Amino acid sequence: MLRWLTAGESHGPSLVAILEGLPAHVQVTSDDVAESLARRRLGYGRGARMKFEQDEVTFTGGVRHGRTQGGPVAIMVGNTEWPKWEKVMSADPVDQAELDALARNAALTRPRPGHADLAGMQKYDFDEARPVLERASARETAARVALGRVATNFLEQACGAGVVSHVVELGGVRAPDGSWPVDASAATVTALDDDPVRCLDPGTSQAMVERIDAAHKDGDTLGGVVEVVVHGLPPGLGSHVHWDRRLDSRLAGALMGIQAIKGVEVGDGFALAATPGSLAHDEIVPGPDGIRRTSGRAGGTEGGMTTGEALRVRAAMKPIATVPRALRTIDVATGEEAVAHHQRSDVCAVPAAGIVAEAMVALVVADALLEKFGGDSVGETRRNVECYLQALRYR
Amino acid sequence: MLRWLTAGESHGPSLVAILEGLPAHVQVTSDDVAESLARRRLGYGRGARMKFEQDEVTFTGGVRHGRTQGGPVAIMVGNTEWPKWEKVMSADPVDQAELDALARNAALTRPRPGHADLAGMQKYDFDEARPVLERASARETAARVALGRVATNFLEQACGAGVVSHVVELGGVRAPDGSWPVDASAATVTALDDDPVRCLDPGTSQAMVERIDAAHKDGDTLGGVVEVVVHGLPPGLGSHVHWDRRLDSRLAGALMGIQAIKGVEVGDGFALAATPGSLAHDEIVPGPDGIRRTSGRAGGTEGGMTTGEALRVRAAMKPIATVPRALRTIDVATGEEAVAHHQRSDVCAVPAAGIVAEAMVALVVADALLEKFGGDSVGETRRNVECYLQALRYR
Amino acid sequence: MLRWLTAGESHGPSLVAILEGLPAHVQVTSDDVAESLARRRLGYGRGARMKFEQDEVTFTGGVRHGRTQGGPVAIMVGNTEWPKWEKVMSADPVDQAELDALARNAALTRPRPGHADLAGMQKYDFDEARPVLERASARETAARVALGRVATNFLEQACGAGVVSHVVELGGVRAPDGSWPVDASAATVTALDDDPVRCLDPGTSQAMVERIDAAHKDGDTLGGVVEVVVHGLPPGLGSHVHWDRRLDSRLAGALMGIQAIKGVEVGDGFALAATPGSLAHDEIVPGPDGIRRTSGRAGGTEGGMTTGEALRVRAAMKPIATVPRALRTIDVATGEEAVAHHQRSDVCAVPAAGIVAEAMVALVVADALLEKFGGDSVGETRRNVECYLQALRYR
Amino acid sequence: MLRWLTAGESHGPSLVAILEGLPAHVQVTSDDVAESLARRRLGYGRGARMKFEQDEVTFTGGVRHGRTQGGPVAIMVGNTEWPKWEKVMSADPVDQAELDALARNAALTRPRPGHADLAGMQKYDFDEARPVLERASARETAARVALGRVATNFLEQACGAGVVSHVVELGGVRAPDGSWPVDASAATVTALDDDPVRCLDPGTSQAMVERIDAAHKDGDTLGGVVEVVVHGLPPGLGSHVHWDRRLDSRLAGALMGIQAIKGVEVGDGFALAATPGSLAHDEIVPGPDGIRRTSGRAGGTEGGMTTGEALRVRAAMKPIATVPRALRTIDVATGEEAVAHHQRSDVCAVPAAGIVAEAMVALVVADALLEKFGGDSVGETRRNVECYLQALRYR
Repeated sequence: MLRWLTAGESHGPSLVAILEGLPAHVQVTSDDVAESLARRRLGYGRGARMKFEQDEVTFTGGVRHGRTQGGPVAIMVGNTEWPKWEKVMSADPVDQAELDALARNAALTRPRPGHADLAGMQKYDFDEARPVLERASARETAARVALGRVATNFLEQACGAGVVSHVVELGGVRAPDGSWPVDASAATVTALDDDPVRCLDPGTSQAMVERIDAAHKDGDTLGGVVEVVVHGLPPGLGSHVHWDRRLDSRLAGALMGIQAIKGVEVGDGFALAATPGSLAHDEIVPGPDGIRRTSGRAGGTEGGMTTGEALRVRAAMKPIATVPRALRTIDVATGEEAVAHHQRSDVCAVPAAGIVAEAMVALVVADALLEKFGGDSVGETRRNVECYLQALRYR
Repeated sequence: MLRWLTAGESHGPSLVAILEGLPAHVQVTSDDVAESLARRRLGYGRGARMKFEQDEVTFTGGVRHGRTQGGPVAIMVGNTEWPKWEKVMSADPVDQAELDALARNAALTRPRPGHADLAGMQKYDFDEARPVLERASARETAARVALGRVATNFLEQACGAGVVSHVVELGGVRAPDGSWPVDASAATVTALDDDPVRCLDPGTSQAMVERIDAAHKDGDTLGGVVEVVVHGLPPGLGSHVHWDRRLDSRLAGALMGIQAIKGVEVGDGFALAATPGSLAHDEIVPGPDGIRRTSGRAGGTEGGMTTGEALRVRAAMKPIATVPRALRTIDVATGEEAVAHHQRSDVCAVPAAGIVAEAMVALVVADALLEKFGGDSVGETRRNVECYLQALRYR
Repeated sequence: MLRWLTAGESHGPSLVAILEGLPAHVQVTSDDVAESLARRRLGYGRGARMKFEQDEVTFTGGVRHGRTQGGPVAIMVGNTEWPKWEKVMSADPVDQAELDALARNAALTRPRPGHADLAGMQKYDFDEARPVLERASARETAARVALGRVATNFLEQACGAGVVSHVVELGGVRAPDGSWPVDASAATVTALDDDPVRCLDPGTSQAMVERIDAAHKDGDTLGGVVEVVVHGLPPGLGSHVHWDRRLDSRLAGALMGIQAIKGVEVGDGFALAATPGSLAHDEIVPGPDGIRRTSGRAGGTEGGMTTGEALRVRAAMKPIATVPRALRTIDVATGEEAVAHHQRSDVCAVPAAGIVAEAMVALVVADALLEKFGGDSVGETRRNVECYLQALRYR
Repeated sequence: MLRWLTAGESHGPSLVAILEGLPAHVQVTSDDVAESLARRRLGYGRGARMKFEQDEVTFTGGVRHGRTQGGPVAIMVGNTEWPKWEKVMSADPVDQAELDALARNAALTRPRPGHADLAGMQKYDFDEARPVLERASARETAARVALGRVATNFLEQACGAGVVSHVVELGGVRAPDGSWPVDASAATVTALDDDPVRCLDPGTSQAMVERIDAAHKDGDTLGGVVEVVVHGLPPGLGSHVHWDRRLDSRLAGALMGIQAIKGVEVGDGFALAATPGSLAHDEIVPGPDGIRRTSGRAGGTEGGMTTGEALRVRAAMKPIATVPRALRTIDVATGEEAVAHHQRSDVCAVPAAGIVAEAMVALVVADALLEKFGGDSVGETRRNVECYLQALRYR
């Protein structure tokens, strides 16, 4: 069983993440993780922070000479802006006069609609939003992407699986239905990463870019939908026997646990709900290389288990809640009406959300792979996968 | 923390469910549970089984004289059809000749597309589908509904919250956007239960019924979308601090863990992804009775926490996979092409899915309430809720 | 990962237990479970209840024709005394006048020292002890023994391991140090079960029986120490990498979670603490059949992992807290001093505790086996174990 | 629910630990943690490493201006010796020629008896012991002590409880039975910390020191027994309703999860097993300040719940397994007999084990406190505790 925790604040010294339960001998380097973190900063429509933000990656545990050692893997992602924040975000007490002199330390008393601010202040008993927004910020997803890279390497090395994502909708502009990356090869991934909005279809991509430009001009923000596809998984990951072992459930929980995600689909999802049964399922046929499904509507799961077809899930991201045209709120210091604080200025973070979604999917699927196949070294897991595939009654 | 497990097969002697972690003094009776189970059999478009199926409810642990006792609550839901199945589904070995003589025991070698059959046979190493479909069947949701009723009673007694669901889409027929039950009163629930498809809007309801009739005539099946609303929750359930503590994540996992669910939304979900930021969020305003949001687009959560507004989530159900016009598959006994087994004959189970979804939501929310407020008796939990509400800095 | 819950009260209709996560194709029957439950009623020094108590075993889920099916296994253990208790312990409300007429229903207001009574009444807000003692009673261990039998069969079938226990101390009478069952064969187990106190050493056994007779005459009760041994486990179960994955930790938690257990040791345990390092460890030597340890002081684990030697753990049981010579307490109805209720009359339950301890150890070890080797069918787990053993660098 | 993970190797750049689930507003500073880490290096009989080892403490998340913020708390404990090890323990690949030139990097092919070495190499498929011993080392306990300090502050601030430990046995020298620290005040703790072996009884302390001197001369090592006492807990933490919620179970698992611990007792533990029932339990009497027990044999729990009396648990530590008089093993590179590697030179680490045990107990008890009382700020938890205590039916 994989367990993992992330810690750290948006303007703290660093994010830290620990992943426990991974086999030994997974090959992974700091450069691998840095590469994934760089992909998370991609995408047309990001604000200034993504430009100057650098992610300093350090493995502080669990990896030696490029291989996991069986123990918990710890990754730090340093914050290059820390010197500007070390008083405001100091763990230890700071002289109040010093703090009072810092503009950055001013109390954030106008909670932003669409953010954790107000509910977090109520729950945790704070009189301003900083303690809430520092943790709720999407900066935290860098820690997930870091761990997700380790999980992705494991998947590739243990069973040859590959994870890829693309943008299927942005600001209401929607890619043509029914096409998704046919593999997770380096070429496919690079091509997607080179697209400004990580969209497969060039025409749609251009329309999405135009939509972002228009929103930018309007002082508005945009959401969208990303899709993650995993190729190369064996059948039988997840289980029908209990609700929380269904892979669909675990994927949905993981994706809906990403900041700003408000909808999740497996396969054709909501569209399936409007399709008659005679046209909604993937028929089973014998083929030269074994059993195949004639289509991928179910997203590669049946009964909460992988079928061996491409696994395909989608997440819907609401538009960024910090809207340049500020929203109405109250000032909790006075109880009066006010307009919300304005903390950042991306127009759209949908392409980046795909990278985060890849990480979450990789972590869930790696966990399911270990649940089924066990193994304390990559070789052991891989051997168990291979024996299973060979021994399958029906392939 | 609530923990719960269900067990039992579709044609076994009974389903059993255990719920651990509930406080003492929750008032609940067998009649309460039987009432909820009866609601699960509702809905236009169900087949014959729903008519003769009776759910015999017995608490075998955790409840005495109408109150929980602090220990695990165990509920059995007996299967009145068991005598017909006791050989075929016997736990202990049965003479092979006896089994061979029973038509019901014939091997199911033509796995049904859209069901757990084939992936389950591969995963668990079976040469026919019965061991898989018996557990994967939606019959298991009766156990969840039973537990969900206990959780619902707890929520009502501990914080006055009420859970209600309705059908918002069926077979592509969609209710007008933006209306949902304004409370979870008995009158509201009864009115919904009295509608053949549990739809709020009478005109839509009629169109849905016609859609079912048409599908029935065509030998086809239908899916749809249900929405669950919880009224009366305090702000601050769930948390922004870690992905798996976000209430959105936990709700999504729970709903996507229901058989046949392929999509989940919180609030306006996928529609939000296509809405510009200036129109997508719920503004915060002072009101005579405290802080309010001007709208409910987010579904009553911000940053993965309840805001105090109505909690609102949706689940998309694919059409029933056992399609009278049978789908293509293979016969695993021969490797040849075949048509799938046909095991049941509902046209549509969307109204029932709403009842199951209510149960899952109630269980998740009850867990979140206990996480925040603790308590080993209903009185203790309620007292902690009340003290929190009184002490809220901002209300 | 194995998950399991038990439910039910001492005088309720039945105990219920669910075990989730077990592979398919474990061979097990009701008779197997009944046999284990009968072993739990063994032992010199038990009171009348053990004589008339019968355990009616029913699998209500997860097992078909003598094999597990991959889904949760549910076992009911019926209470043959239920008719006498069905009003007092009714789940549904009973007319108060009827209850008042029943002596069995009288409020238990004198909480017994050494039992859960008083702390349970405080925690769960009850004004008498029945709701507490009904669940705290050792009757609940029947449910664990039932599940433990399923786990034991799995261990035997997946890796050839066998579980056995014996009594090493009773009422202060201690068996000679350093001997334990050399295998878990039927002959060994039967010989132990035939001994009145399940002690390996005949002379000690006789002294223990005499100690029980003396205590019985004195109106007193006795405790003791049991040891569980598991033969045939592969090296590497558990892990050194995190505290809660150490097998020692998991075994200690499981054993200390049995009613009346107040001490746990792995291997020589407390005696090791008083032994100098030069004599406290098990040296490693090459042997004709592979690597061996020269002794078993550590109990078959190093660094929280099995070594391949016999796994050996002990649990210390305090004397039964319901002492015929009643202990001082208060009557909560009056606040006055009183003597404690007297609910049962065993002198000693140490032999039975060994059977319960076997079950807990079997469940923990089965979980650790699945964690390392995975597998959704016994054949798959066994294959993975065998491949691992063959591939071991050092054996 | 508290969740926590530690990561890092003995000679890695730093240990990292994350604690998730703690309320906001716990007051804690780096100095607090550094003070606890310094206590862990105390004790007569430690080797050179404890002298030069310095623990550099940094909170990298979850704490701001001396208060927790509700999010995960992350602590790094830097390794001042890292420069000597940065090639050998580098996460990223290092040129093989460079590694070959380093004596520190020589393969450890002679696994040490009593350590994780051999079982870890088998489990994780390594051909030398370094990847195993780096994580299995007791250095990791520094991370637990760091988190334990945060939990201890929380306990003190939320319910006034205090945690203290002392050495009750060392190298076979045993303190007089039946006395333990009567409070957890600063004076009591300082007095214990000032004793060379952290023993309450001066005469015993002197005998223990002499025992260490003798063992040092003999080239031998020693084990012992520590006891942790928690004063000031409310009744009702833990629960009798399920085995894994019993506080005894959770404490036993936590203590047995510490490196080198092979036995655990709650209260008088094994001694109780040899005491007749009439003398083994703590009678209940009314007192001027409420209900009291006449003795503390059970260690402050009944039925797996705190009683309100002092909680008292013990852990037995085996002697350090790296014995100067080296033990027999095999050289896995040759398969020949050999003597074990010698990695460190403490004679005895029992006093330090008490500090680690305090940390584990604090974490378990803090978790149980949150389970019962909930709360997202210290004030909320404290308020819920106070309301419960006031409302107790029987006090």
